[in-house]
Amino acid sequence: MIFTIFGATGDLTTKKLIPALYNLYIESQLPEEFTVLGIGRRDYDDAGFIAEIEAGMQGDYAEWDVFKVHIQYYRMDFSNIDAFSAFSAMLKTHYAGQLRDKIFYLATAPRFFPIIAEGLIQNHIVVRGDLRSKIVFEKPFGEDLASAKSYNRMLLQSIDESQVYRIDHYLGKEMLQNILIVRFANKIFENIWNFKHIDHIKIIAYESETVKQRGGYYDQSGALKDMVQNHLFQTLALVAMDSPTGLNDRLIKDEKVKVLQRIVMSDDIMFGQYAGYLDEKGIPSGSKTETFAALKLYINTSRWQHTPFYLITGKKMDEKLFRIVITFKDSSFFFEKGQPEKNQLVIEVYPREGIEILFNGKAPGLQAYAMPMKLDYCHLCNTIGNTPEAYEKLILDVIHDDASLFTRWDEIEASWEIIDALEMIKHFEPLVIYENQTAILAKLETLWKEVKI
Amino acid sequence: MIFTIFGATGDLTTKKLIPALYNLYIESQLPEEFTVLGIGRRDYDDAGFIAEIEAGMQGDYAEWDVFKVHIQYYRMDFSNIDAFSAFSAMLKTHYAGQLRDKIFYLATAPRFFPIIAEGLIQNHIVVRGDLRSKIVFEKPFGEDLASAKSYNRMLLQSIDESQVYRIDHYLGKEMLQNILIVRFANKIFENIWNFKHIDHIKIIAYESETVKQRGGYYDQSGALKDMVQNHLFQTLALVAMDSPTGLNDRLIKDEKVKVLQRIVMSDDIMFGQYAGYLDEKGIPSGSKTETFAALKLYINTSRWQHTPFYLITGKKMDEKLFRIVITFKDSSFFFEKGQPEKNQLVIEVYPREGIEILFNGKAPGLQAYAMPMKLDYCHLCNTIGNTPEAYEKLILDVIHDDASLFTRWDEIEASWEIIDALEMIKHFEPLVIYENQTAILAKLETLWKEVKI
Repeated sequence: MIFTIFGATGDLTTKKLIPALYNLYIESQLPEEFTVLGIGRRDYDDAGFIAEIEAGMQGDYAEWDVFKVHIQYYRMDFSNIDAFSAFSAMLKTHYAGQLRDKIFYLATAPRFFPIIAEGLIQNHIVVRGDLRSKIVFEKPFGEDLASAKSYNRMLLQSIDESQVYRIDHYLGKEMLQNILIVRFANKIFENIWNFKHIDHIKIIAYESETVKQRGGYYDQSGALKDMVQNHLFQTLALVAMDSPTGLNDRLIKDEKVKVLQRIVMSDDIMFGQYAGYLDEKGIPSGSKTETFAALKLYINTSRWQHTPFYLITGKKMDEKLFRIVITFKDSSFFFEKGQPEKNQLVIEVYPREGIEILFNGKAPGLQAYAMPMKLDYCHLCNTIGNTPEAYEKLILDVIHDDASLFTRWDEIEASWEIIDALEMIKHFEPLVIYENQTAILAKLETLWKEVKI
Repeated sequence: MIFTIFGATGDLTTKKLIPALYNLYIESQLPEEFTVLGIGRRDYDDAGFIAEIEAGMQGDYAEWDVFKVHIQYYRMDFSNIDAFSAFSAMLKTHYAGQLRDKIFYLATAPRFFPIIAEGLIQNHIVVRGDLRSKIVFEKPFGEDLASAKSYNRMLLQSIDESQVYRIDHYLGKEMLQNILIVRFANKIFENIWNFKHIDHIKIIAYESETVKQRGGYYDQSGALKDMVQNHLFQTLALVAMDSPTGLNDRLIKDEKVKVLQRIVMSDDIMFGQYAGYLDEKGIPSGSKTETFAALKLYINTSRWQHTPFYLITGKKMDEKLFRIVITFKDSSFFFEKGQPEKNQLVIEVYPREGIEILFNGKAPGLQAYAMPMKLDYCHLCNTIGNTPEAYEKLILDVIHDDASLFTRWDEIEASWEIIDALEMIKHFEPLVIYENQTAILAKLETLWKEVKI
């Protein structure tokens, strides 16, 4: 197997892809013969590339020395389509024995997707119908609906959908994989998962980081394209989808895409930009790019009716946090002394992986009043070792031809339709400059009076 | 206040009543002036009685010396009705200042209930309508329906129902008090609490002890009268009752009694006696008294229909244990590779106080299969100090004229009706002699093939 990474000199390779491949190697999940081939425009030899990776590595890599001999580097300007014929020749010369299974991982900015894909296809490195050669696209797939459509059209003219893996690494996270199991394998949850029992649902994705070195990319993107179009909408689809008629990939995606196609945006939306964003490296002066987005929306299906969904994401928040909060309606019992707190089911994705249920129980002691108590499940705590990183799971799935946790074209298309509309609306909305999480959430609370954020 | 204990030289006084009163004292829940008056037939003076209590005390009694000056002893043969006029005179002489609030706690065998009550009433120590004088009856109230009826008739000829407290100390346990809150203050539970979602319910009450010194009492009683008629049926009523139209005492009991009146016993019942029972002190030779009872029954209400309830109680089991296990039906989703485990909600009363929910979640790791996981709530763990003992709560309620956690006459009556019928049936059932828990439960599994015990 040859696992080729385009844009290998970026952070993703060091922080996610190499650790994931290393772990798969340790767990004997990779074939006996394999090469990890990094491709970039910088002038490295193999040793220099490995040294660069090693400089960024954290944690325990006991068998690194055995693993690193599989890593090689090829210098190439992948923005030039002519460079791909030399690349093809090089592959045939040096990797003749490993060309049966080829995975091309595009860890570049989306604007390079078409040229890399075209270069691979034109030079017959990836051939239609050869399921042993696959292309993996980092998110976001496209920059808007039009560009995503054009990439996709180009791709599917030459190769099959089954050779295309559009990655959204959130789908590889343990607790997102858990959503469908929790929803459909449990009698206690399946019947309360609808507008009759649920008051509202929040999907919260905070990042503590600023744009750092990624200003050039981020300013073209903003929170809507960087987070909402992919991670938040995919999470929304898993939480809100109807019961599939079976557990296979196609049937699940058929239901997910219906959610994305039936999103109805409300007017109660808010965009923000953290104070200091304009001073970051690579940000054009006067940029209006949002680093914070808060959306209130509905899903127009019989399951949800008027249930509001609140999506909140932002940079420069207090801590990195990702969770889904399902708030149930009041119990129908009438309490003379005031209604107890509403029940909540919290699916914790990051930093802790787990599930919390807030319910009302007897306050311990001689008095007989109800107060909120917590039922707790910790996904990691009873496991030996760590739960796998999302990229590890997803790369393994690519190797095994399992596209369940990757996004299908119609999901991408439906997502971009909403995002394109939001990008239009955005220009008519004020951009709230915020110092920190407290400030922006206080502002948001004045907009969403009906809900505790 | 004068708190009089008839049968004060028994275990209950040392182990439960005195510690409960002491704790109430520590928490400033007792009036400034109070006396705990122990009554028994043994020849003690106050100091001797206190010494006897001290000999059995366990734990931390930092303020014992301040408390113990409130304890006094009065020797009296309470099986002799004539002794009560002297008792009355003594009260007037010695406790003139404290006679406003009088609580008489009958911690004796049930056969002494009528004579003590009659002695108190005939001598005007307890007077009809004087809500500051109350009689508390230890369970079981009566020995069968006829005797319970006769006691009750005698009582209510002379005093009001509101002066009568029929104790079932299980109702004072935190997690039993919690059942109604869990059921009716939580949207997530209220809708799944019926035959549509629940497969079956088990109420399990194991005791590790043998009859010990209580053989004389126990052999007259057996598991049906000692455990089922009171603790298990009261628990059943709380678990199975319909939603009351309000939270007051009367409305709740109106619903509880309906459950007891609508019990339909199945034929799948089993009685056992632990090996060695006949050699215990005070057991007549050839006794057929059951120390183990397993009942399968139904509640004939629209909420429950054909849902089986399994009640299991026994002595000489592996450990003392009391819990309610609610097993839900399979999720309605069809899994090709076999249905996941059924969900369970476990209300743990003893030894741990808590709630566990067994649900299906993703097995941690690279594979995507469901396995049973646990949501956990520990009632004690997040509390400062201990949750109060049942007797502490119940005595406080007597002081405050709150009869919510005491059994009303119609509940007692309905319970005895079932128990009387079971006592008849029992004679036609084999009595299984068992060595230990494993043996008797293995035998029970051959009877109840449909359920995991």
